[in-house]
Amino acid sequence: MSAADILGYTAGAITSLTFLPQVIKTWKAKSAKDVSLMMFVIAAVNEAMWIVYGAMLDNWVIILTNAIVLAMSLIMIVLKLKYGK
Amino acid sequence: MSAADILGYTAGAITSLTFLPQVIKTWKAKSAKDVSLMMFVIAAVNEAMWIVYGAMLDNWVIILTNAIVLAMSLIMIVLKLKYGK
Repeated sequence: MSAADILGYTAGAITSLTFLPQVIKTWKAKSAKDVSLMMFVIAAVNEAMWIVYGAMLDNWVIILTNAIVLAMSLIMIVLKLKYGK
Repeated sequence: MSAADILGYTAGAITSLTFLPQVIKTWKAKSAKDVSLMMFVIAAVNEAMWIVYGAMLDNWVIILTNAIVLAMSLIMIVLKLKYGK
């Protein structure tokens, strides 16, 4: 495995967890007034596109990474709708 | 260009704009209390990793896409520090 491969897999693992701090913060604070609903709607649609792309290439790294981010985006959409006002 | 290529480029273009609605919302509302600082710090470090990865592969799509998201993450960090309380 090359240095670029290792960096790519590490970066991908971190990417999949990017939304986690926001999910935890919103879950605890029960407040999402300042959070953009549109951001997570765009992210969710975008992750679905990446999952289809990953499936077309039969690339499980792309599929799994984006499935995690999609799940977190959907959770944030629910939290925003619940705590957004 | 294959259907997968077209889907990949389209998804990549949308990915680069994911944070834009949050930047606009925070800019207008001048309030970022509910926004996670940690999310954008992780995102910024992660984008820097992707830019190095793109440079190692000499892949300008990866470099440019992540440079845009890095710029938006840095703007969000500034806005969070300014309007986070």
